[in-house]
Amino acid sequence: MTETLPTVRQAQQPGDAKPGLRIAMIGHGFMGAAHSQGWRVAPRFFDLPLHPEMAVLVGRTGADASAAAWGWGEAATDWREVIARDDIDVIDIVTPGDTHAEIAVAALAAGKHVLCEKPLANTVAEAEAMDAAATDAAARGVRSMVGFTYRRVPATTFARDLVAQGRIGEIRQVRAEYLQDWLTDAESPLTWRLDKELAGSGALGDIGAHAIDLTEYITGQKVTTVSGIIETLVAERPVLGEGSGLSGTAGTTRGPVTVDDLALFTGRLESGALASFEATRFRTGRKNALRIEISGSKGAIAFDLERLNELEFYDATLPETQLGFQRILVTEHDHPYLAPWWPTGHMLGYEHGFSHQVVDFVTAIADGTQPRPSFADGLHVQRVLDAVERSSNAGSAWTPTGS
Amino acid sequence: MTETLPTVRQAQQPGDAKPGLRIAMIGHGFMGAAHSQGWRVAPRFFDLPLHPEMAVLVGRTGADASAAAWGWGEAATDWREVIARDDIDVIDIVTPGDTHAEIAVAALAAGKHVLCEKPLANTVAEAEAMDAAATDAAARGVRSMVGFTYRRVPATTFARDLVAQGRIGEIRQVRAEYLQDWLTDAESPLTWRLDKELAGSGALGDIGAHAIDLTEYITGQKVTTVSGIIETLVAERPVLGEGSGLSGTAGTTRGPVTVDDLALFTGRLESGALASFEATRFRTGRKNALRIEISGSKGAIAFDLERLNELEFYDATLPETQLGFQRILVTEHDHPYLAPWWPTGHMLGYEHGFSHQVVDFVTAIADGTQPRPSFADGLHVQRVLDAVERSSNAGSAWTPTGS
Amino acid sequence: MTETLPTVRQAQQPGDAKPGLRIAMIGHGFMGAAHSQGWRVAPRFFDLPLHPEMAVLVGRTGADASAAAWGWGEAATDWREVIARDDIDVIDIVTPGDTHAEIAVAALAAGKHVLCEKPLANTVAEAEAMDAAATDAAARGVRSMVGFTYRRVPATTFARDLVAQGRIGEIRQVRAEYLQDWLTDAESPLTWRLDKELAGSGALGDIGAHAIDLTEYITGQKVTTVSGIIETLVAERPVLGEGSGLSGTAGTTRGPVTVDDLALFTGRLESGALASFEATRFRTGRKNALRIEISGSKGAIAFDLERLNELEFYDATLPETQLGFQRILVTEHDHPYLAPWWPTGHMLGYEHGFSHQVVDFVTAIADGTQPRPSFADGLHVQRVLDAVERSSNAGSAWTPTGS
Amino acid sequence: MTETLPTVRQAQQPGDAKPGLRIAMIGHGFMGAAHSQGWRVAPRFFDLPLHPEMAVLVGRTGADASAAAWGWGEAATDWREVIARDDIDVIDIVTPGDTHAEIAVAALAAGKHVLCEKPLANTVAEAEAMDAAATDAAARGVRSMVGFTYRRVPATTFARDLVAQGRIGEIRQVRAEYLQDWLTDAESPLTWRLDKELAGSGALGDIGAHAIDLTEYITGQKVTTVSGIIETLVAERPVLGEGSGLSGTAGTTRGPVTVDDLALFTGRLESGALASFEATRFRTGRKNALRIEISGSKGAIAFDLERLNELEFYDATLPETQLGFQRILVTEHDHPYLAPWWPTGHMLGYEHGFSHQVVDFVTAIADGTQPRPSFADGLHVQRVLDAVERSSNAGSAWTPTGS
Repeated sequence: MTETLPTVRQAQQPGDAKPGLRIAMIGHGFMGAAHSQGWRVAPRFFDLPLHPEMAVLVGRTGADASAAAWGWGEAATDWREVIARDDIDVIDIVTPGDTHAEIAVAALAAGKHVLCEKPLANTVAEAEAMDAAATDAAARGVRSMVGFTYRRVPATTFARDLVAQGRIGEIRQVRAEYLQDWLTDAESPLTWRLDKELAGSGALGDIGAHAIDLTEYITGQKVTTVSGIIETLVAERPVLGEGSGLSGTAGTTRGPVTVDDLALFTGRLESGALASFEATRFRTGRKNALRIEISGSKGAIAFDLERLNELEFYDATLPETQLGFQRILVTEHDHPYLAPWWPTGHMLGYEHGFSHQVVDFVTAIADGTQPRPSFADGLHVQRVLDAVERSSNAGSAWTPTGS
Repeated sequence: MTETLPTVRQAQQPGDAKPGLRIAMIGHGFMGAAHSQGWRVAPRFFDLPLHPEMAVLVGRTGADASAAAWGWGEAATDWREVIARDDIDVIDIVTPGDTHAEIAVAALAAGKHVLCEKPLANTVAEAEAMDAAATDAAARGVRSMVGFTYRRVPATTFARDLVAQGRIGEIRQVRAEYLQDWLTDAESPLTWRLDKELAGSGALGDIGAHAIDLTEYITGQKVTTVSGIIETLVAERPVLGEGSGLSGTAGTTRGPVTVDDLALFTGRLESGALASFEATRFRTGRKNALRIEISGSKGAIAFDLERLNELEFYDATLPETQLGFQRILVTEHDHPYLAPWWPTGHMLGYEHGFSHQVVDFVTAIADGTQPRPSFADGLHVQRVLDAVERSSNAGSAWTPTGS
Repeated sequence: MTETLPTVRQAQQPGDAKPGLRIAMIGHGFMGAAHSQGWRVAPRFFDLPLHPEMAVLVGRTGADASAAAWGWGEAATDWREVIARDDIDVIDIVTPGDTHAEIAVAALAAGKHVLCEKPLANTVAEAEAMDAAATDAAARGVRSMVGFTYRRVPATTFARDLVAQGRIGEIRQVRAEYLQDWLTDAESPLTWRLDKELAGSGALGDIGAHAIDLTEYITGQKVTTVSGIIETLVAERPVLGEGSGLSGTAGTTRGPVTVDDLALFTGRLESGALASFEATRFRTGRKNALRIEISGSKGAIAFDLERLNELEFYDATLPETQLGFQRILVTEHDHPYLAPWWPTGHMLGYEHGFSHQVVDFVTAIADGTQPRPSFADGLHVQRVLDAVERSSNAGSAWTPTGS
Repeated sequence: MTETLPTVRQAQQPGDAKPGLRIAMIGHGFMGAAHSQGWRVAPRFFDLPLHPEMAVLVGRTGADASAAAWGWGEAATDWREVIARDDIDVIDIVTPGDTHAEIAVAALAAGKHVLCEKPLANTVAEAEAMDAAATDAAARGVRSMVGFTYRRVPATTFARDLVAQGRIGEIRQVRAEYLQDWLTDAESPLTWRLDKELAGSGALGDIGAHAIDLTEYITGQKVTTVSGIIETLVAERPVLGEGSGLSGTAGTTRGPVTVDDLALFTGRLESGALASFEATRFRTGRKNALRIEISGSKGAIAFDLERLNELEFYDATLPETQLGFQRILVTEHDHPYLAPWWPTGHMLGYEHGFSHQVVDFVTAIADGTQPRPSFADGLHVQRVLDAVERSSNAGSAWTPTGS
């Protein structure tokens, strides 16, 4: 079970000596499937400077089956042992947030490049430790990156480019929201995601983090202070399965929801502009609506993840009779990340961001540059999340993010 | 100049003795044109219990021309004289907000029914006086109503009906926003609307008031407490015309903007649900986007004034594979207010709300019932606006609206 | 019943001697209500060179009530008598199509300006007679126009302007469709609109005529030859009311549908470009979707009457990464017809086209110019309709329109 | 170069003896990349009954590099030799259409299962030979399928299901169009796709074929007779590269476009309902708009490939005030093909259809059933294309498809 994939490596490099980059992925839930698809597909479409090899998948239970299903060369159960191996170059962390810090710090100390899923950690303290470890590691040429893949939807990257080029002028306001509805039903069960011990946070940390990161990424500005409220709309939910108690009948036992269902907050950007945020699992009918609209003195851009191949752009410098939001299909050869994919008008999906993440991470490793979003970027998002929670506890008082 | 319009009255009522209702309108700006269209058109499509006659238009200057253009029987300059006349039944107030209280209180005292444009007043104190006068007048059979006409877009009325029928279940959250962009250009001049003395308020009072009223109308719940921020994004603007100073050349003199450009706030409804609000004149590319989305336990509704003939409805009780927002064209015979208009699929415009307002006001007068939105409703909106301003001054502290 | 509306006339012209233009409208169905609204409202918003007076409404039965409801000065039953009157300047024909020719020819002969609802006539022969009469009348300074009001939606007029300015370059193709669904239900009854004797045509003449006229208007080109098919999808329908027969119970008697339900045809424009047309009452869910998309060498425009305040414009000369259809809200001051109406972003409705029609017709009368669409334009549309029907009968053979 | 991928096979099947299915793909253009992605990804998400192995990629030139890039076990140059090999189970044909017949007939004769890209062939005669070979092969348990992957977008499959369940009732009409714009620029060069010798057909065969197949798939009905026109809008284009002649300078030489740019036709379905089709490379601004709308007596469905994760559904049986097209996000667990992919609201892209194609083809092979679309289905589409071309040559005369 420990051998690599030599045949594939040969096939990949006929008469070519492209160096390999051996990956171990820790964790194998939903994000494990998505990261696996990124590692699998990226080298088939992009000409990477290093050839990633899906070497080891690590999981406490069931890793064998996942490794087989997803095409990892072998499975392992102890992440410490894998980190200690000389034949592993990269640790890809897709475990729940409470384990990120320990694994990442250890991996960086062992000289492994680290890709860590968002959120960077469950607490600011953990994230600070990770950021410190990343800084140390960078001095030794070891790279680290956090997995905010929605930066790598071509439309959001293109939005960032338009903003950077001054196409919307000075930023006046931002509206960023991430709307889901899977908790609308009050009888929806009490899963681990609703337990603060395990999940760390609710809508705020899970999806609000994306809205914050995307805002900071596209505007190029940090959120410096926040005022807001987080709230749990349904306080108790049915406990699932065995945990429902010895004497209880199905559905009769209820347990407390200990994370937020909803976060509403306002932040101020470095330039002074205000940004309004919403993260919720209760916007009935909205399935995965990460939306951002940035209003500037010369134009505006609007994006909705439910139509991820489109970017709306408004050019306020046109004659008054010709003003209007323009639906740009971000599928042209010259749009970000698009060249190796399909012809114009052939859509990309959710998972393509994971291939783009692999491209950027592997390229940064080969080039010896700092990939973004860095652990420092991830730490900052963590500080914003923390400040929102503290503001909520303080009656929505304005709370600095410490950045 | 004081005679009525006998020919029209006869034409209106062949063999019919429908009593007349003589209207005097005070003010003749943009709202004057809109109200005139309402008085002119409503009786041509709806079978009203009383026949409104456009008797007198009152304005300090230029009322003659406006009366002629809009078809009022005569013009006058002194509103007090007009209120004192026995042949006037209704006073329609479309002057700036700082004059509403004085006129309305006097008119009600004189036994005239009063229709008053929104916002009800520029201050809570004024609004309270008006509400007290309205209560007194009601005891004498004299009616009063405030002009939040966006309640009378058929799609919003229908939304209210769907909510009242329980089609979206228990309300979980509300998002209400009124987005405009006419101040995006920092060189846009300093008009009276940007002067607190005259306008009372900026985006908050002008358009935020609509977002608040529509939320309270559709949900049937009041906003009880708020936390938010109001802000002026462009602090100084070019002074227009004579006011630009003796020695200044055109455009060189600048004056301070003394009202808000932007208001972001969160409110709690009576049921405890949170509502997130935005009112802004800086959302580049958004011209008149009064939007509301109400998320409930069984469904959701969404409306955008830029597509005012449409209502989006989401029925969460459908099978999972058939869920989706439904674009209802609110142009069917059985939709609110629609029967007397055009066939299915023939669109209404902005001004039709003013005809519907006439219908409801005249009907309430004839029936001897309290028309809505009442002055009490208008006072409540004023209190919410005031609470938002106070919250903003208090670092976004949660502030009760006193309702 | 014959007196005019002197009070209104005075009110309209304080110190002004704007000459009057006395209108008699013949017919008082749905189109009568729409035309009345045009005559009523246009002079209140637009500064017309002549002042239209709603003098006489003519109808065989019930004209009194309609005249009263709509505000016409008097009612009459015999159109010939009204045409003979010296105090009438304009005849507005809103009767069914089978009577247009006789009335219009007589009115023009009597020196009355004529506005005639579309379709110009039920047959090409009738339309030819009307066109000849119009040509004769024009030589005497008498004007005539046919009522294709969808040319006067600001968005379609603006589309015409963009095309005329070369903004979409050389026209490559056109798609024009008018989709309704009110016959989807096979149990929908057999109304007069489904009887060829009375209605002349079905979907083809009723709504296909609009698609043809709009195509010719916006492109500036005539359809020269056509190939197509018309078809009746539901051959028999329930007969309504008394006509259901002596012995039949309600709903048991059925009669034949003698007009088309659906027309699909292709036409060639003068430039050689192909245009594809559809007119149907069976496109389930489409209520009033008159849509046109014109594709050119440099751009494209797209319009949908269900969103009549919007025009989509595509500028193919932009850089490749910035291409996209732009949703222009056609509500700016400088858009066609918009200046006298409401501020930006305040929507117009279906009926506003009838005011714009009044503006253009009255202006042409005052200026002594030929208003468009002329009877010649209406005749041409009639010829296209006729050619489609002949093509359908000839197995879709290409059939010249004779233009 | 001939060895298989044993490591991957082991990884795929820990403790499992899932039999392998060895694939050889002939051709390596754009479609080769798409098919490779299908073979690569499908087994990682779906539990296939047989394990596909990407064994051999065949190409006259450059196959080595493509095989390496895409992960095929080996490369080969002679398809006949590969077909003769015992260790190959499936031949996947992605060459240009003029070679399909020879390869497919030979492969089926050799007992290989065949997946053939659309269009099945360049002529009806070739397609007939292929269908005959497929019928013979099927008797021996050898399977064949044609690659209309747009049937396997979850939204189109779901549309087919809704129609089959009677949710839209009796089909009244169909509109199917495939709109592109890459030839809008008259200076766009003369590629092989514009040469009838090589491409067989233009817009009609390339993209019109998809519109026909999707119509027949969703409705479950064949097109029996057609009337239409095909046309070349730009007759000559610049010749590219060396072929531009000895003495010519770049861009000065022009050659004839010998295929159609545009096809407009009407077809009749087996039930008698009419379907209107358009296939064009000149609809400026439309990049890849394969759209279909099916109108029925009880409802309608509408789909647009530019928003491929959405299906619009109209339920005409709802109360009149609640009618409207519903935007269903086809990303639920119970939607077709969705279960193994991502959570609700996470979008699929263009390429996922190729994985779904692999799933259905491999499953049919394992189950011993006839996969669809069969060569008979592909032959039928070919006959429709041929009938359209003949109709066009015969002045749009109605021409039976012979089905």
